[in-house]
Amino acid sequence: MRNLHELQITTAVEAVASRKEVNEVYFVACGGSQAVLMAGQYLFDKESSVPSHVYTANEFVYDTPKNLCEKSVVISCSHSGNTPETVAATKLARSKGAITICLSNLEGSPLWEAAEYPVHYDWGKDVSDSDKNKGILYGLLFKLLGVLAADAKWDICFKELEKLTELSTKAKEQYDAQAKQWAKDNKRKKTIYTIGSGINYGEVYSTAMCWFMEMQWINSGCIHSGEFFHGPFEVTDYDVPFMLVKSIGNTRFLDERVENFAKKFTEDLLVLDQKDLDLSNVAEEARQYVAAILTGVVIRHFVEAIAFERGHSLDVRRYMWQMEY
Amino acid sequence: MRNLHELQITTAVEAVASRKEVNEVYFVACGGSQAVLMAGQYLFDKESSVPSHVYTANEFVYDTPKNLCEKSVVISCSHSGNTPETVAATKLARSKGAITICLSNLEGSPLWEAAEYPVHYDWGKDVSDSDKNKGILYGLLFKLLGVLAADAKWDICFKELEKLTELSTKAKEQYDAQAKQWAKDNKRKKTIYTIGSGINYGEVYSTAMCWFMEMQWINSGCIHSGEFFHGPFEVTDYDVPFMLVKSIGNTRFLDERVENFAKKFTEDLLVLDQKDLDLSNVAEEARQYVAAILTGVVIRHFVEAIAFERGHSLDVRRYMWQMEY
Repeated sequence: MRNLHELQITTAVEAVASRKEVNEVYFVACGGSQAVLMAGQYLFDKESSVPSHVYTANEFVYDTPKNLCEKSVVISCSHSGNTPETVAATKLARSKGAITICLSNLEGSPLWEAAEYPVHYDWGKDVSDSDKNKGILYGLLFKLLGVLAADAKWDICFKELEKLTELSTKAKEQYDAQAKQWAKDNKRKKTIYTIGSGINYGEVYSTAMCWFMEMQWINSGCIHSGEFFHGPFEVTDYDVPFMLVKSIGNTRFLDERVENFAKKFTEDLLVLDQKDLDLSNVAEEARQYVAAILTGVVIRHFVEAIAFERGHSLDVRRYMWQMEY
Repeated sequence: MRNLHELQITTAVEAVASRKEVNEVYFVACGGSQAVLMAGQYLFDKESSVPSHVYTANEFVYDTPKNLCEKSVVISCSHSGNTPETVAATKLARSKGAITICLSNLEGSPLWEAAEYPVHYDWGKDVSDSDKNKGILYGLLFKLLGVLAADAKWDICFKELEKLTELSTKAKEQYDAQAKQWAKDNKRKKTIYTIGSGINYGEVYSTAMCWFMEMQWINSGCIHSGEFFHGPFEVTDYDVPFMLVKSIGNTRFLDERVENFAKKFTEDLLVLDQKDLDLSNVAEEARQYVAAILTGVVIRHFVEAIAFERGHSLDVRRYMWQMEY
């Protein structure tokens, strides 16, 4: 991780450490950025005693949680730093005295100015994955947990983020042929569902809402593995496509149960099993978190392949950037 | 509300009141029951300083939140009282010393036995809506808030639940013709999206996951109004059906923004505006909560109409009840 990024993270974490009490951590953003932050709520729920919530920014602004106060920490994210709802939510949180930390690719953006503790992340080819949005977010989360849920493992997890670039490259190579074949097989599908659980839920959420619906105009919906058998599974048929992320974390059984059912009743089940990722040189403590980030990289590789097969660039929008709404 | 139900609620609430401190309220269930409980989390987030979370039961069991302890309150729900994941989650919570409250239609069911404080609700025709699952849940929530976020309005809200039967009958009559027409117009649609926000999110979630996917085998996905413009809206086209719930609560602006966009780009937008409900004889304090319950009644009326037009009974399942999974 670049020294600049580590310094910005440390500054934000020191501000949190200096507060006597943290009553709640709010993760506030929109769309793909909200999906990325969902991992933060997962980590706080499962690894700390500090309550946390994820909010889509405008609900946070128009229907503000009662607990928001000077004891709260609000972590927001916007790639461009220009998402008006996220900027407004961050300003609101700061006006209530909460510690405001934002992640953005653009220094000096409205979000950057709105937050008390802005943290930059890099983007594009040829930059280290530990300096991209997820590397920076997990770095921030591990450092925050080091303060709010002290454990030696958080320093270990933080260091392991350095391996993300190498691991991502390997993961893309590993899935390249399968991604191209899946893309050919599914290029005419009108609907593709995504399914996952635990820390991976944010990845399947953004795959449905952003990759498929926004960037491919393919109908989609994301289903939590634990909910699959309580309604959604009745749509299963031989030609219904599911993309399932199989976790190496505590919720693996939930994902496995979906797999065991779905493989019997659809011919179009894609299982991305995190056990297939080579994490042999990653510390045990960090594996499920590294796996969650790599799963996002792998899914993006599948999405780029189907975009190519469909001749539908991931950069095409018919409403976004085209008009006011 | 029947005296028995009020007594069971009071007993549970007194148990909560007797605890010195409540660190978190967990709402734990599966599918439609989880969707019903989502209103509870909304109420606690916006009206109290007690953190709360909704969990699908198996995630709660396999990946238990760290905060679960004798200071916690766990509210679970299963209509049959036989949902294994919800029973297991309730047993786990009780073993950790949490106050366990369950809602069920079946006294003596496994869930009923698992929870320390079981609360019964009625079901079927000819029973008062204040004694059905949502009437009982809101009754419990208002009484709990009376203890954890004391305010005279909670007693007013509780009393207003008595009007649910009369209001539900009126709401069904009001929407009857529109429901039948919408059903005729949409009976051959392969995909119908649901959209909503705030306290109504649970209703649009269950409409997508249970009414459409489970009981009609229609592809669906639920979209939070605040997220619509951050991905999902790119699927909008002249023939894409949306069912939008327009709230009378704080998030109304979010729903209105979706409506103003969608009506321009699809010919198939159904808006269920809670302002159209006659709530003139309902106390101001209770209106948004009564409206949320009535919206569920209205949506069910639309779903029954489309089930008739499609000749697809709401009682048909191809996997559920047919096999082990």
